[in-house]
Amino acid sequence: MTYGVGLLLNEGMVLLSDTRTNAGIDHISSYRKMFSFEVPGERVVAILTAGSLSVTQATIAKLQEAVEDPEASPETSILLAPTLLKVAEIVGATLWAVRDAVDQRLRTGGQFGPASMIVAGQRKGGVMRMFLIYPEGNFIEATEDTPFLQIGEHKYGKPILDRIVRPDTSLADGQKAVLLSMDSTLRSNLSVGMPLDLAVIARDECRVTQQRRFEPGDADFRRTSEAWSKALRSSFGKIPL
Amino acid sequence: MTYGVGLLLNEGMVLLSDTRTNAGIDHISSYRKMFSFEVPGERVVAILTAGSLSVTQATIAKLQEAVEDPEASPETSILLAPTLLKVAEIVGATLWAVRDAVDQRLRTGGQFGPASMIVAGQRKGGVMRMFLIYPEGNFIEATEDTPFLQIGEHKYGKPILDRIVRPDTSLADGQKAVLLSMDSTLRSNLSVGMPLDLAVIARDECRVTQQRRFEPGDADFRRTSEAWSKALRSSFGKIPL
Repeated sequence: MTYGVGLLLNEGMVLLSDTRTNAGIDHISSYRKMFSFEVPGERVVAILTAGSLSVTQATIAKLQEAVEDPEASPETSILLAPTLLKVAEIVGATLWAVRDAVDQRLRTGGQFGPASMIVAGQRKGGVMRMFLIYPEGNFIEATEDTPFLQIGEHKYGKPILDRIVRPDTSLADGQKAVLLSMDSTLRSNLSVGMPLDLAVIARDECRVTQQRRFEPGDADFRRTSEAWSKALRSSFGKIPL
Repeated sequence: MTYGVGLLLNEGMVLLSDTRTNAGIDHISSYRKMFSFEVPGERVVAILTAGSLSVTQATIAKLQEAVEDPEASPETSILLAPTLLKVAEIVGATLWAVRDAVDQRLRTGGQFGPASMIVAGQRKGGVMRMFLIYPEGNFIEATEDTPFLQIGEHKYGKPILDRIVRPDTSLADGQKAVLLSMDSTLRSNLSVGMPLDLAVIARDECRVTQQRRFEPGDADFRRTSEAWSKALRSSFGKIPL
């Protein structure tokens, strides 16, 4: 499994994903599930992936190919598309096409390799937008009312986001919130695992302004995680019933 | 959906379930999903249910009928069964038989009405035991390493249990922990709803020693829930990253 989360805040966007993939319990490895495409200052598009690795890798490769194609057009390249909505459409259509092709070959009746993605971006002069692309290629968008999107194993880490994340949450607090949301997920589900990839896209910068990989045993992550555990247990002891 | 949770602690067992059921989004109602059978001081068996209401209601009714049958035997009555393991077997077999009968009538190929249960009990001279009965009637047991069992919509409420509940957790803290676990679930999933049923079975008492229904707006539950939210937000602000 995977856990990926994106926050759409007034100050910018915060993205976090794990890297654990497994095909059966004895075939576990690490793969990057966060990708970014950018023309710094002009446009940034970050993509988080969850689900069938063969589908998500092929999708990202095809998106990359389309960007590099000498005949790239606003219809095919996510770096040329006129709007972020069009970017989400290109990603959704590519995801679906990849999946559908294998599905038809295997005759799996539309059941092959579901995968989902979070697409977050901004182009110069536009607003920040964040989409959740479903396995069928359709999508929904984050809004003020729902300032975060999750893919993969999302339930364990949702309560803390529900309580903490608001559009006016700062980028620093946003990073803390997604890391603690991930921490709850890591503790409850073995199929989500370190290292973690974190990215921040500050508003109107149109580039990934901060990027960090948390390796297993990362001192900062461990300190935050332990402080949170301790704070939870101490709060638990104090509240009334 | 449903959320039900049981803790197996050194001091006793703590059980909590919601009462929301729905058959489609416009057919929502409240049904008790916690049942107890007891000969006070001799034996207590508490059952939490999740899943298809027609299956769980019929299962509980059949267990009740078997208990009241003038020809009840240790093979059929959960109040006469020689061990708690046998109680779990009777519950599992009854659950499966009810489901299988409808499934065969509908020819749904084993897919009809999945339901699961938590069975918790003690008989005089025996130890407390707690089982999770799967939809197929097989079951697993809570142990020192895993001192809680959950049924239904269990993921949102698991992180807090993972962090707080140990076998030596007190009954008072156990009650607080299941209520906060439920609180996280209620906030994240609309299909789980008040009122809540709480029961405590103190060790070696062989009866339900404490029982309480939390109606919507219950002042104690709200106070605890609000104090927890406040503590979480305040802790969140204080921990480092």
